[in-house]
Amino acid sequence: MSLMQPVHTKPRLRTIAIATGAAIVAASLAGSAAAVAVSAAGQWQREPGDNTQAVRTAIEDAKAKNVILLIGDGMGDSEITIARNYAYGAAGELPGIDALPLTGSYTTYSVYKDGADKGKPDYVPDSAATGTAWATGSKTYDNAISVDIDGQALPTILEIAKANGYRTGDVSTAEIQDATPAVQVAHVAARSCYGPDSTTCGADALASGGLGSISEQLLGTRADVVLGGGLASFQQTAKAGPWDGQTLLAQAQSRGYQVVTDAAGLAGVTKASQTRPVLGLFTPGNFPTRYLSTTAAIGGADTPVTCAENPERLDSSLSLAALTTKAIDLLSSAKSGKGFFLQVEGASIDKRDHAADACGQIGETIDLDEAVQAALEFAAADGNTLVLVTADHGHSSQIVDVTPPTSLSTAVTTADGTVMKISYGTAAAGGSQQHTGTQVRIAGFGPGAANIVGLTDQTDTFFTLSEVLGLNPDTRALSRKAKISNPQLVRGGQKVTISGSGWYGDRQVAVSFGSETKTVDVIDGTVTASFTAPKRTTTVKVDVSGVQSGVRKNSVVGVRK
Amino acid sequence: MSLMQPVHTKPRLRTIAIATGAAIVAASLAGSAAAVAVSAAGQWQREPGDNTQAVRTAIEDAKAKNVILLIGDGMGDSEITIARNYAYGAAGELPGIDALPLTGSYTTYSVYKDGADKGKPDYVPDSAATGTAWATGSKTYDNAISVDIDGQALPTILEIAKANGYRTGDVSTAEIQDATPAVQVAHVAARSCYGPDSTTCGADALASGGLGSISEQLLGTRADVVLGGGLASFQQTAKAGPWDGQTLLAQAQSRGYQVVTDAAGLAGVTKASQTRPVLGLFTPGNFPTRYLSTTAAIGGADTPVTCAENPERLDSSLSLAALTTKAIDLLSSAKSGKGFFLQVEGASIDKRDHAADACGQIGETIDLDEAVQAALEFAAADGNTLVLVTADHGHSSQIVDVTPPTSLSTAVTTADGTVMKISYGTAAAGGSQQHTGTQVRIAGFGPGAANIVGLTDQTDTFFTLSEVLGLNPDTRALSRKAKISNPQLVRGGQKVTISGSGWYGDRQVAVSFGSETKTVDVIDGTVTASFTAPKRTTTVKVDVSGVQSGVRKNSVVGVRK
Repeated sequence: MSLMQPVHTKPRLRTIAIATGAAIVAASLAGSAAAVAVSAAGQWQREPGDNTQAVRTAIEDAKAKNVILLIGDGMGDSEITIARNYAYGAAGELPGIDALPLTGSYTTYSVYKDGADKGKPDYVPDSAATGTAWATGSKTYDNAISVDIDGQALPTILEIAKANGYRTGDVSTAEIQDATPAVQVAHVAARSCYGPDSTTCGADALASGGLGSISEQLLGTRADVVLGGGLASFQQTAKAGPWDGQTLLAQAQSRGYQVVTDAAGLAGVTKASQTRPVLGLFTPGNFPTRYLSTTAAIGGADTPVTCAENPERLDSSLSLAALTTKAIDLLSSAKSGKGFFLQVEGASIDKRDHAADACGQIGETIDLDEAVQAALEFAAADGNTLVLVTADHGHSSQIVDVTPPTSLSTAVTTADGTVMKISYGTAAAGGSQQHTGTQVRIAGFGPGAANIVGLTDQTDTFFTLSEVLGLNPDTRALSRKAKISNPQLVRGGQKVTISGSGWYGDRQVAVSFGSETKTVDVIDGTVTASFTAPKRTTTVKVDVSGVQSGVRKNSVVGVRK
Repeated sequence: MSLMQPVHTKPRLRTIAIATGAAIVAASLAGSAAAVAVSAAGQWQREPGDNTQAVRTAIEDAKAKNVILLIGDGMGDSEITIARNYAYGAAGELPGIDALPLTGSYTTYSVYKDGADKGKPDYVPDSAATGTAWATGSKTYDNAISVDIDGQALPTILEIAKANGYRTGDVSTAEIQDATPAVQVAHVAARSCYGPDSTTCGADALASGGLGSISEQLLGTRADVVLGGGLASFQQTAKAGPWDGQTLLAQAQSRGYQVVTDAAGLAGVTKASQTRPVLGLFTPGNFPTRYLSTTAAIGGADTPVTCAENPERLDSSLSLAALTTKAIDLLSSAKSGKGFFLQVEGASIDKRDHAADACGQIGETIDLDEAVQAALEFAAADGNTLVLVTADHGHSSQIVDVTPPTSLSTAVTTADGTVMKISYGTAAAGGSQQHTGTQVRIAGFGPGAANIVGLTDQTDTFFTLSEVLGLNPDTRALSRKAKISNPQLVRGGQKVTISGSGWYGDRQVAVSFGSETKTVDVIDGTVTASFTAPKRTTTVKVDVSGVQSGVRKNSVVGVRK
């Protein structure tokens, strides 16, 4: 009796054969013929013929080598439809977002931190709780960055992937300290704990014995590639710890980072590694948007507008799509590593929806769509990459038929040449439009993508990604085979170098030489720390302790005067 | 060389093994543990483990024997989430709607009828245009019941299924003349053309030479099972045509219908056929809702309420789930027919959302969910039935975090024991909350269901259903082999019976005997009409013409005085 293996054909995307990003765009644009003036049956069909086999072919068993997770912040089904209607027409397709072959919905609720409702569902989450859900597999309270409702730090999928030998990246159009990028690289109780000067860090501040602000933790997490905004926080000065008194930028440089702050700088970066990770910070705060803002008003939808390009938009080499491509290039060309995990966020869909800014949110959705195209282009060519595209939560904007009487609204003239009216009804003029608690779309392409079909919860995504990459979440186990080496006998006053290898479960280790302790970064499992031997004959205890794993290794160095 | 066939295992639903409807509910309720007060990773997961194989198994190649299409009118993702949160908690599952294993989104826009924008997208559709889209495969204008933007009648999936030898059914909690049930059985330019007394029928009125009101056309379409509200229109009197001067109820009875108007009457119905189709009309207008109405107000969400049962609700044997089960029983036990097509609508999710009635819309969504459970129970046991569940369009209700300042709102205490705030911001108090233009969820189980995965358009659904049932849409071809028979020679004044068979493409034929013409119903392809021969020696021409197919057959009858 022989075991028969199923035959796997190459995955294909839903509607388009992929060769290059340009081909994606061209094919999709060609297919997005908008209005037609006759009405024969079938002319509006998106998917002629039986697609059963195409869907079946899109289902590939895990594992994948790489994962690209793209988040449209606040990008519910309404926001997707608004952007499609505007840019490609109602019968058109967003060439990235709409091309993913497998689709489902997931629930996004958070949980209450305190009081009688502790642990019970809070139906409208923020981006901190939702990001924590997919980053850690746990629900938490609004405001929490990868800590649970009791404030305990939870390992993130990026940290775990790194510990398992994967390259990692974190890209956003927001300040890199903003909730969505932050959940992968930091653990704080209050999301606004951006830097050493933040007043909300409380016990998380280094000076209070905590893990430090988001920016400081980001440097310790040491993803291979971090690209976004948020330079301002890195210009602040550490108030405690090994880099006390230095700016975080100086700290980054001293820890080996390639820090770049503009297009030319990024163009000059050709490699990313644990020895030389890349930190690109291109704006003091959030990126400028693609389109100029529009202001919704009561009665606003009575006068349609067309969205205008924002002259302040960053160089095209710093678009979200370009940063996604750059991150993929750097991560996929790394010499070591099992593969990579990359998170990409289009942040200002949410921010412009909060501001009832229809053109703003549309432009940011298109920007994310272009990043999705870049990811799909790589994944289709690679054949071994899972791409997931989803949102963290729904948002306020709704497409309506008539100008709403009491809500803010804007109308835009679309690619179809007709008028789309958009209503914002959850806050008053000048207020912040609210997130909504609706389930949102999640879509996937590549190995393991079938796990997002149907109804899942945001926390399931963590496990889907863990399983598809075959990650071991037990950081203690990952450092258990760690070794240290040191000279057995040195002369008094001589330099003593203690080195270690196999510290995969840790991002830092604390190396003690007698009463002196240095915390050093783990580089691909290896660590090095140097001390000066005392000028007397003695025996000095060596203790190396994994900061994340808790694994300890001991030795001694003999000193001869 | 041998061709290898893939091995198909029995399809299974996403999370639950199905034995009986009760088991579905029990399994799902058991799984809907709501709030928990700890936060270990994974406890909130909906789908532990790798579900790739489960999704793959859910994909079955068309064809199916039966189709059950369930529509939640206005049931966007927000409305689904609201009902889930209320009834089962945020971590719970709607035992029907959430159990479907394959999921996607579809676009719902309609098109403009007139003017410069003729044929271009209208981003926010009504239920007439959306129903016409899946019923006919064509986009049309708001207000149109299965006619195109030029007013031409388009064959519906129910009519085509019937012509192809399938049993058919149409069930709704609305007046059966309401847009969603009407699109399957009628063709009128204005959806409010309910009965002979309607003032909006225009050229569609029988008296104007049209096809007649929706109620009159419904009788001619002669689905095997029609169950819903809307008795009032059938109490009106025809103003033209063969039943001029009779009520539509009397007409129904004279055309062979089993007309029932209450629970006992329906219980007495044990068979449905083309000879004796079932017309159940249980309320003058729409069904009463499951829950009593709540009234949203500005600031309303500051005071949570619990939904109360409506004492006016119909007998439990007339719930949407019970009617669905009854229709399935009648259609599946029919002795003839290739299988069945059944449409089921939960109508008042939309109607209560229009009224900013949170408890109303929640109860109607739960009612639809129970109907979905009934459909899945049959389909899982049958193994050869496609079940699709979707909405016609999105609607206004949104789950929000804080009471919105300018919009109407209501708060409810949910199964989780926490408060869910619902905002209605697209109309003022007393106005009608608007439909929205968002893409909406479509979900499926059974053969051909994979066609709904990804992004489709509402019009695609028509083709998915046509293909899964193997329908030939060419009604002319379906009647091409029709035959007629008549006596060659009769005595003057004698009764002459003309009969025909094979008129499958027609619902009526016009039988002419000399200058006299009778329009008669086609019963499973057969027709019969009787005339009286003239009292003189002559030859009388016989002409039988398919009303829908246009096929004509001729003969002569010799008369001997």
